[in-house]
Amino acid sequence: MSLIVQKFGGSSVKDSEHLFNVAKIVTDKYKEGNDVVVVVSAQGDTTDDLIEKAQEINGNKSASKREMDMLLAAGEQISISLLAMAIQKLGCPSVSLLGWQAGFKTTSAHTSARIRKVDTLRIKKELDSRKIVVVAGFQGLSRYDDVTTLGRGGSDTSAVAIAAAMHADLCQIYTDVEGVYTADPRKVSGAIKLPEISYDEMLELATLGAQVLNNRSVEMAKKYNIELEVLSSLTKKPGTIVKEKPKMEKMLISGVAKDTNVTRISVTCIPDKPGLAFKMFSKLSARDINVDIILQSIGRNNTKDITFTVPKDKGTEAVEIVKNFADSIGAGEVIYDDNIAKVSIVGAGMETHAGVASKMFEALYDRQINIQMISTSEIKVSVLIDKRDADLAVEAIHDKFFPDND
Amino acid sequence: MSLIVQKFGGSSVKDSEHLFNVAKIVTDKYKEGNDVVVVVSAQGDTTDDLIEKAQEINGNKSASKREMDMLLAAGEQISISLLAMAIQKLGCPSVSLLGWQAGFKTTSAHTSARIRKVDTLRIKKELDSRKIVVVAGFQGLSRYDDVTTLGRGGSDTSAVAIAAAMHADLCQIYTDVEGVYTADPRKVSGAIKLPEISYDEMLELATLGAQVLNNRSVEMAKKYNIELEVLSSLTKKPGTIVKEKPKMEKMLISGVAKDTNVTRISVTCIPDKPGLAFKMFSKLSARDINVDIILQSIGRNNTKDITFTVPKDKGTEAVEIVKNFADSIGAGEVIYDDNIAKVSIVGAGMETHAGVASKMFEALYDRQINIQMISTSEIKVSVLIDKRDADLAVEAIHDKFFPDND
Repeated sequence: MSLIVQKFGGSSVKDSEHLFNVAKIVTDKYKEGNDVVVVVSAQGDTTDDLIEKAQEINGNKSASKREMDMLLAAGEQISISLLAMAIQKLGCPSVSLLGWQAGFKTTSAHTSARIRKVDTLRIKKELDSRKIVVVAGFQGLSRYDDVTTLGRGGSDTSAVAIAAAMHADLCQIYTDVEGVYTADPRKVSGAIKLPEISYDEMLELATLGAQVLNNRSVEMAKKYNIELEVLSSLTKKPGTIVKEKPKMEKMLISGVAKDTNVTRISVTCIPDKPGLAFKMFSKLSARDINVDIILQSIGRNNTKDITFTVPKDKGTEAVEIVKNFADSIGAGEVIYDDNIAKVSIVGAGMETHAGVASKMFEALYDRQINIQMISTSEIKVSVLIDKRDADLAVEAIHDKFFPDND
Repeated sequence: MSLIVQKFGGSSVKDSEHLFNVAKIVTDKYKEGNDVVVVVSAQGDTTDDLIEKAQEINGNKSASKREMDMLLAAGEQISISLLAMAIQKLGCPSVSLLGWQAGFKTTSAHTSARIRKVDTLRIKKELDSRKIVVVAGFQGLSRYDDVTTLGRGGSDTSAVAIAAAMHADLCQIYTDVEGVYTADPRKVSGAIKLPEISYDEMLELATLGAQVLNNRSVEMAKKYNIELEVLSSLTKKPGTIVKEKPKMEKMLISGVAKDTNVTRISVTCIPDKPGLAFKMFSKLSARDINVDIILQSIGRNNTKDITFTVPKDKGTEAVEIVKNFADSIGAGEVIYDDNIAKVSIVGAGMETHAGVASKMFEALYDRQINIQMISTSEIKVSVLIDKRDADLAVEAIHDKFFPDND
């Protein structure tokens, strides 16, 4: 008998038909003799509908984050109770638990709280009485007894956190794709489903917009060595296993990913004093804005130009912070551009094989795609290009590395 | 400075426009220097929509009551957070609290839990920091840390419970009517709004289907001597004050009410042994079915016939219980009828004035309305009549007692 954590996203539970489909998957695993904990997101568009209700009240201004969390947490409350009912209807005992009931203790950073720990007492009690436990993903409780949410994609993290806290044997993340592909299968016809992938590779792909798994969930899975399986709730096919050491494939790279959620910001004529760049980036970091590719160049009159990227949804906020800072130190212009895309290749094989980056650049050169910025790490090469060229770039790079799969 | 508890029903918060109307009423009271606790129900049709979702899963069978509570409690979670946002938008600090956060400890009778106590620590803490506290009505937490609901109309009870626990100066129940009337003002043109009414009279009116206030809330208000005001959230007019000793009005009765939520059940030929009737009624009571008017008559061959009424929504359940019992004791038929209505007059004046009942019967006789059963108490006379005659009966009785108000 194993303990299995299964996570289903909003599209997998969007109506009663889908709920019964999920209930079937869950009860099948249960009937094999396993203990099953199910983590679910809010149904379909519920979260967006609730956000719209808040916007009707607040206009364009954002509402109190505490109240937004209170509002949004209602979404999973609906889906967990309905799923528990569907499981009961299929003849298996089931109980639904809210984030706080399932023991999720989080920081009090509303709308983007981090899990501090999971007190699994209640979950264990329910499993002991052979119930299928349905847990609200995405939500927890702060030390002030306020409802918090983990931010978009937080349900993946909830699932992995339970799996880690309970030493689960497997954590299955059900999505609307069949696994992790070498490129987006809806865009690139030759995309190959990977049977296995390492945490680090998955992490780069998640961060880079492959969007199959939330990156915090992969980080957590890596930290606690939880084996993840990414698979589809609609087909019965095996998915992709994410683990520490996947069995070696002869592939140089494991995927090509595109990320259009990028804004590029440039600050010109920064006085050449030590610590100024550090100060600017710490101001952004204080507001939870992650800075990605950074490029520094020499400007005119003993000044520097700094260019970097931030997530597009933080773009306006970042530009404001940077403008204020630039004014305060007597720097030049602040220029930003969000018509850009980041295209990346990821692969553990890179570490031992030279020439991977140049092969990627060659693919782009062949299609006359201009590279604006480059960033590399041990298992990743990213380039910043014009957004219009993004899909073409992904296809060109994929064809170069996987020539036989069209 | 006073502590005021205000309660708003689902229709008062059904959309953003109504939410702002409520926020205005609340912030006006707050700006006068009062501490304000607001109790709200789920928005408009939310509860019905959620019930429909559950029915899609469960067909006609009723779902697990625990899961129904989990599902329905999401309704107030949405309305409290939106109202807190609206209050903040109007410039006042506000915080929303779920039933369990507001300290509502209830029994574990899911879907119809009773409040055991209210731990007001959190509410007090928020009031101390001069916040308007918005509390989810209708919901609480069982000793097993499960979300419970108090049943329909439970938000009134939530409001009175907070008022009682906090020794509030006033508890205002905002509804879509302007107060308590001598009859339903939508049906009877001469209906008069009462400035004041006693708990006992209100209790009879609530029980008898005047439906302005939930009867449990009035019972609780009476027990803790909380002054209630029933008023409209849409007009600025004063409502009706419900209190222990209203200033004496020269009215014989304070209202005429109609209740069509009634099923009449008759059991024929019950063997004449002591205790059989008691056993039957205790079986109903064990299932939380309230028996109202009871009539016993002599049947054939040394047997008895017993006729009584139960709420219509419990009718099917009651008939089943009674049939089983009748079979087990060798009684005769079980007959039921739900095409009936109970029409009642209520008034503390009755105690000291003779002839009130006969005046009522005369009014019915004048219109040729047949009385099937009669029940009286110190401040109430109820008759059971054909449902078709209900509106006519109310009007006839009202005209008789309030002849000058058409």
